[in-house]
Amino acid sequence: MSLITVGTMAFDAIETPFGKVDKIIGGSATYVALAASNFVTPIQQISIVGYDFPKEEMDDLKKRGVELDGVEIVADKKSFFWSGKYHLDMNSRDTLITDLNVLADFNPIVPDSYQGAEFLMLGNLDPKIQLSVINQLKTRPKLIVLDTMNFWMDIALDGLKEVLKKVDVLLVNDGEARQLSGEVSLVKAAKKIMGMGPKFLIIKKGEHGALLFHENHVFFAPALPLEEVFDPTGAGDTFAGGFIGHIAKTKDISFENMKTAIIVGSALASFCVEKFGPNKLKEITKSDIASRIDEFVQLVNFDIDLV
Amino acid sequence: MSLITVGTMAFDAIETPFGKVDKIIGGSATYVALAASNFVTPIQQISIVGYDFPKEEMDDLKKRGVELDGVEIVADKKSFFWSGKYHLDMNSRDTLITDLNVLADFNPIVPDSYQGAEFLMLGNLDPKIQLSVINQLKTRPKLIVLDTMNFWMDIALDGLKEVLKKVDVLLVNDGEARQLSGEVSLVKAAKKIMGMGPKFLIIKKGEHGALLFHENHVFFAPALPLEEVFDPTGAGDTFAGGFIGHIAKTKDISFENMKTAIIVGSALASFCVEKFGPNKLKEITKSDIASRIDEFVQLVNFDIDLV
Repeated sequence: MSLITVGTMAFDAIETPFGKVDKIIGGSATYVALAASNFVTPIQQISIVGYDFPKEEMDDLKKRGVELDGVEIVADKKSFFWSGKYHLDMNSRDTLITDLNVLADFNPIVPDSYQGAEFLMLGNLDPKIQLSVINQLKTRPKLIVLDTMNFWMDIALDGLKEVLKKVDVLLVNDGEARQLSGEVSLVKAAKKIMGMGPKFLIIKKGEHGALLFHENHVFFAPALPLEEVFDPTGAGDTFAGGFIGHIAKTKDISFENMKTAIIVGSALASFCVEKFGPNKLKEITKSDIASRIDEFVQLVNFDIDLV
Repeated sequence: MSLITVGTMAFDAIETPFGKVDKIIGGSATYVALAASNFVTPIQQISIVGYDFPKEEMDDLKKRGVELDGVEIVADKKSFFWSGKYHLDMNSRDTLITDLNVLADFNPIVPDSYQGAEFLMLGNLDPKIQLSVINQLKTRPKLIVLDTMNFWMDIALDGLKEVLKKVDVLLVNDGEARQLSGEVSLVKAAKKIMGMGPKFLIIKKGEHGALLFHENHVFFAPALPLEEVFDPTGAGDTFAGGFIGHIAKTKDISFENMKTAIIVGSALASFCVEKFGPNKLKEITKSDIASRIDEFVQLVNFDIDLV
């Protein structure tokens, strides 16, 4: 009855038009765990960190119900470090530094205590690592969700295609969906990508919302129009965490419930961008989340009695 | 109980990745009338054409309930001509030719028979012309909707600001909202623009849908994800026509009803892009429109029982 999350735990340095932070906790698995733990525990984390990753951050995650048995701590290396600078429109960014550090040796071993998990969230990583985690699981989870990015399409397309055959839900952005499929139309892209393995495809469009495709169905979830987007770092991972968190809580993997899960993911992501790094995610309560979800309902709600 | 529409009636030459057409009927007022006449008649058109504008197109509009008393026919000049080429992603285009022809002399006189109209749709034109039409109306319409573009912000900002004070609803795209307000955030942009006069602001985002702002409320309408976008020409005008058509039919200018009107406009626009120019708009039936609107309902419909 648990959820395994696989991804990075890292330090980020972020510069946006609104400010700058030299060192803040980040990494896909961190954001996923922070978001998903609002809905379900335990979360069984698989990651790797260096000697420099703060004990208080680990303790904070544990308090939220995140098990860290699968997080390897390397005593003589530093944690993964990423540094980026956002452009004025916040839709694009330049990566300034990528120090792999411990990530170069990441070869995750699934702890015995994690076996039997019903849900698996594979954060953006080398497809070989994602596949290795799937292959180590003695019972196939009820739902496997995979996040990836254009980088892996560029340098590890064959490996990515192999792991795609084994997952249920793929998360990509619109540019990545176009790259992976070779189609400009997202509807055509979705059909091709679902032909590669995933029965469900989520296309994230940032401030323009997200699309969920399944068979011949499509669902659209908007992003909340925000007065200030302070820092988009981690918004995609937070979306994924909210999505899988809702699914794992409800144990319902239907298309209908995935629509709701996408609204939940969008709501969590809308909090994430309000402060630097994961700061806002650490503050929010269940009641904040419920109000924010209600804003999404209001945003798209209209009377159907039309013509 | 009628609707006045003001705008261009023109010839277009269009090239898209899917084909090319050398001469097809276009112009903002043509698209608005084709869309709006599905919902309300008479439509009282104000425009200008040359000797070359086809009689059969005029007759076709009349059959749809479009009155042409306000359309000046200039015997010795050609109709307005625009030629453009779309890029592969269909989100951007290059204007190749703009031959103003009759449009250079456009100084519309509102026919007496149009006086007393309840609704006024001002298509994208020189703000001076838009203002002149407003000033000629003896009774202020119940609702005045204005469409404009970045071109007028560049060369006629003062005139635009003057006419903005006199309208109820402004239609612009996201780039234009940012340009007009000087704000990157669309929420902030909307607040500033509503301070310039319009009580309602619609921000069109093309394939990413549309936002409706009013006081502290916001509504989001998606665009339908389409397998093929064949030709986007006229989609914005068609959206405006569906919007004002629904409003004029229901005579309800509340925020709630404007939400529905935006869905109607989006549905009409989704047809427009399926064939060259206005060809698809000429074919569709009330039943086609009802089915398409139902697709929009399905697209955004989700269960609210969340947390």
